[in-house]
Amino acid sequence: MEKLKIGIIGFGTVGTGVYKSLQGFDCVEIKKIAVHNINKPRSVEVAKEILTDNAYDVVNDPNIDVVVELMGGVEPAWDYIQTALRNGKHIVTANKELLAKKGEELFNLSEECNKVVLYEAAIAGGIPIITPIKTILAGNKITKINAILNGTTNYILTKMDTDGASYEDVLSEAQKLGYAETDPTGDVEGFDAAYKITTLGTISFNSRIKYENVYREGITKIRKEDIEKANELGYKIKLIASASIDEDNNADVRVHPMLVPKNSMLAHTNYVTNAVKIKGHPLGSIVLSGPGAGEFPTASSVVGDILSIAKEWGTTEYLLPMMRCHHHKTANPVKIEDTYNKYYISITAPNAIGVIAKIGTICANKKISLSSILQKGVEENNTAEITVITEKCLERSVNEFVNELTDCTVNNVIRVCEE
Amino acid sequence: MEKLKIGIIGFGTVGTGVYKSLQGFDCVEIKKIAVHNINKPRSVEVAKEILTDNAYDVVNDPNIDVVVELMGGVEPAWDYIQTALRNGKHIVTANKELLAKKGEELFNLSEECNKVVLYEAAIAGGIPIITPIKTILAGNKITKINAILNGTTNYILTKMDTDGASYEDVLSEAQKLGYAETDPTGDVEGFDAAYKITTLGTISFNSRIKYENVYREGITKIRKEDIEKANELGYKIKLIASASIDEDNNADVRVHPMLVPKNSMLAHTNYVTNAVKIKGHPLGSIVLSGPGAGEFPTASSVVGDILSIAKEWGTTEYLLPMMRCHHHKTANPVKIEDTYNKYYISITAPNAIGVIAKIGTICANKKISLSSILQKGVEENNTAEITVITEKCLERSVNEFVNELTDCTVNNVIRVCEE
Repeated sequence: MEKLKIGIIGFGTVGTGVYKSLQGFDCVEIKKIAVHNINKPRSVEVAKEILTDNAYDVVNDPNIDVVVELMGGVEPAWDYIQTALRNGKHIVTANKELLAKKGEELFNLSEECNKVVLYEAAIAGGIPIITPIKTILAGNKITKINAILNGTTNYILTKMDTDGASYEDVLSEAQKLGYAETDPTGDVEGFDAAYKITTLGTISFNSRIKYENVYREGITKIRKEDIEKANELGYKIKLIASASIDEDNNADVRVHPMLVPKNSMLAHTNYVTNAVKIKGHPLGSIVLSGPGAGEFPTASSVVGDILSIAKEWGTTEYLLPMMRCHHHKTANPVKIEDTYNKYYISITAPNAIGVIAKIGTICANKKISLSSILQKGVEENNTAEITVITEKCLERSVNEFVNELTDCTVNNVIRVCEE
Repeated sequence: MEKLKIGIIGFGTVGTGVYKSLQGFDCVEIKKIAVHNINKPRSVEVAKEILTDNAYDVVNDPNIDVVVELMGGVEPAWDYIQTALRNGKHIVTANKELLAKKGEELFNLSEECNKVVLYEAAIAGGIPIITPIKTILAGNKITKINAILNGTTNYILTKMDTDGASYEDVLSEAQKLGYAETDPTGDVEGFDAAYKITTLGTISFNSRIKYENVYREGITKIRKEDIEKANELGYKIKLIASASIDEDNNADVRVHPMLVPKNSMLAHTNYVTNAVKIKGHPLGSIVLSGPGAGEFPTASSVVGDILSIAKEWGTTEYLLPMMRCHHHKTANPVKIEDTYNKYYISITAPNAIGVIAKIGTICANKKISLSSILQKGVEENNTAEITVITEKCLERSVNEFVNELTDCTVNNVIRVCEE
């Protein structure tokens, strides 16, 4: 069998993991690796002659069949990938931001060039998710995804829960341990998870989700008190990336913290582990969980994609028909204000006669039913800590409720996952 | 695109689920369905002319491209499948017993005939497991699987735990609800799980596991007292199908009850849900969970296999290279007596001076270290209930320990899962 010749762009943690993991696979030959600095010391020994500091040496090399893009970010990666596709190369990428922001153009171009773009590593690291959805689950109409797609935030929320610690304290510990970056914005504000759910929603629904329509809230406002109260009420707090679609192609796609029931698989997904729950017909519900990042788990997915191309290489002109992505329709966005959810609301109220009555009256006016109310005595400063969980109700009504509750302080409003 | 023409053998629950789920997929046409009784009333309306009561009408039909075998059992299914392969048809099957007992001949014959045999539905129902292992995880060396592969026994063990009920009581309830068969042997004695782990081990390790080398114990000896004690010690009891392989191709493959730590994903896999934990390099560990049986979940996998063939149909002469199975080596079996495990041992001892000393002495002689000992007071009949959990030790030594503990009654010995 003819060897598949690959070029790699980006040789950081994942790149070296891929390099190591490809050793022993005779069907693949690494022809070139584009790096930032050729002379930098590395954890693997690589022949100098295959290194280049010019990515165009990779994407323009006529001897390269597949370009493996592992540099991340939109530019210049997008330019390299377009050039590579136009030069007749297949693409393997782990670039979630590029997929979220340029997915439509990317898949249209790959179709035009009759080349495949594979990206198992871009979503949920080592967990097999893109391939199963595109292949063995292809007979399903997938209608709902609930997922934990960001390891950093899941680590922080897990530690806040187990240690009873504040967000700030756990964040700085996570930064010291290397689980969070110096500027943690991309993770803690939910950008990373939003990139991933954009693509995951698109391929699950076979209808394009636009990144700008994904509602996004991070975990920075979660207090240790919220985690304590959630525990009392039978929940854990997780940053959930969710996507659902209805019969009329309206897609509700978002990233925000949620209370999830303690007995659910998502509640038991702790530290840097990721998990994806998929609901569809005829399947029912499945949960896939595992390492969402890291040198080797991510390499597992990149290598899997490379081998998928290698194994069909030379047997057909039209590779991997099931793995191709070309979406002919775009989902209609649903505004968060128009969605129905259950809510956890933490309120500090003056310990005055009629406060509960007032809360109850405003709820009733807004058609908000309460399923749980928790108040334990009165605080030293003569206020009461009241926690309520609502039944399913309109987000806009909850916003109005919060605005009209002028005598009280609303400490937090967090949506509640029903399953 | 030319339609893929399929014939179905067996039209029970799964068959009708497949029929319903294939509606709307224009790339597939159902040409013939072999049934036991053509005139039997069904939950779907099927044109009479495509029904036959002779399976050879399906496997010998020159217009059929793929035979979907959903009847189960070794014979006559094996004869039908061999005939179909020799007649140039691809095979999709959900037949776990056939795969376990005839897998080697089956895959050799399919290779000889240059046809594929797909069987996602045979293992863990709707959970994507075979396809991920053969494709996106192909870069991994898988070394260990721990799985819950039988819904009936998991339902029984879950109900025994939640209701504090005996095995017999829960079994008869499960039989009434249709979760257990009138003769439950195939499930409760672990045969069903043993069939599945035989094939799952083979494809995970790329080394053939022989069904006759799979050690098997069922759940009939699990007492509600064992479940109570396990809970106290931080465990749940599950019927675990496990497979591990070492560097020298020695495979330890078995089905038996195990104590699994309460905080593990397997412990949270309840009722009829199945779960498969896979450990490999570079992947690390992943857990895939979902419905292990049922009309629609199983149909999801059967339809996924059919569509995999349909999508490559006409694009190449050599379909689905990654999904092909042909194992050139057979794993060496490991005898259960030669394995090292942790053990839960429940002992009823006379309340006499020196009993604990005697237990301790025999343990020491057999090189068995104890990690937990639980004894709470003395029973009315002047005996003591002693529960121990050992460190990892040789199974043969534990058998000797039990035999030499002549003054005591050993109520149960159950292996303990470490992760």
